[in-house]
Amino acid sequence: MNKIEHIGIAVKNLEATNALFEKLLGVPNYKIEDVLSEGVKTSFFKAGPNKIELLEASNENSPIAKFIEKKGEGIHHIAFAVDDIVAEIERLKKEGFIVLNETPKKGADNKLVAFVHPKSANGVLVELCQEIKD
Amino acid sequence: MNKIEHIGIAVKNLEATNALFEKLLGVPNYKIEDVLSEGVKTSFFKAGPNKIELLEASNENSPIAKFIEKKGEGIHHIAFAVDDIVAEIERLKKEGFIVLNETPKKGADNKLVAFVHPKSANGVLVELCQEIKD
Repeated sequence: MNKIEHIGIAVKNLEATNALFEKLLGVPNYKIEDVLSEGVKTSFFKAGPNKIELLEASNENSPIAKFIEKKGEGIHHIAFAVDDIVAEIERLKKEGFIVLNETPKKGADNKLVAFVHPKSANGVLVELCQEIKD
Repeated sequence: MNKIEHIGIAVKNLEATNALFEKLLGVPNYKIEDVLSEGVKTSFFKAGPNKIELLEASNENSPIAKFIEKKGEGIHHIAFAVDDIVAEIERLKKEGFIVLNETPKKGADNKLVAFVHPKSANGVLVELCQEIKD
């Protein structure tokens, strides 16, 4: 893993939490993005080489709506930057991790992504991210 | 905030999760440290400029024991690296955040630390870290 690419935080109200995190981090967000395939609206902040991604559910079936119902608002996942997501998926599967996406999919912020089931990673939802090169 | 210094993960069994995270991250931990003041035993991994800190409760009154009882194992806090923790505590208090340590205290991995109450940060326990220079 090259670095923590971002930390995803589940929020009920993106607009209100955006204002709060601008105060917390001391910088405004640099992007709002709807990710229709995931049922989320996202907002991104930079913290040096890392990012914070706020996630609001776009509909009641969104994984974020379910997460908040079960655990409340708060930290949702850790995303790691990798150079070769296909190779990393294979490596993790061989090590016994449950990878939820056999084939990486298009995620927010111009990334190919795949998730590791928290059941296989001590309760932590892990995302792998590979930057899409133009 | 300069970067995400580390992500803290609450675990029941440090030895078992250590072995799991060595597989997940592809590197062994670089340090085990008891932090008596916090009632935790910690293990640190590097991921580029960032770290993962596994936290096991040393006793039943440890905040980690209480966290696991309430929410289960998983991501516990985000720590941000700052240059001047005293100034940052003041800034956040002025912005309305509840800072749990008016004066920074000695934390794990040679750091001065202070925590922001999750109640004031959308359910996220935030740690500020300043490296102690020798």
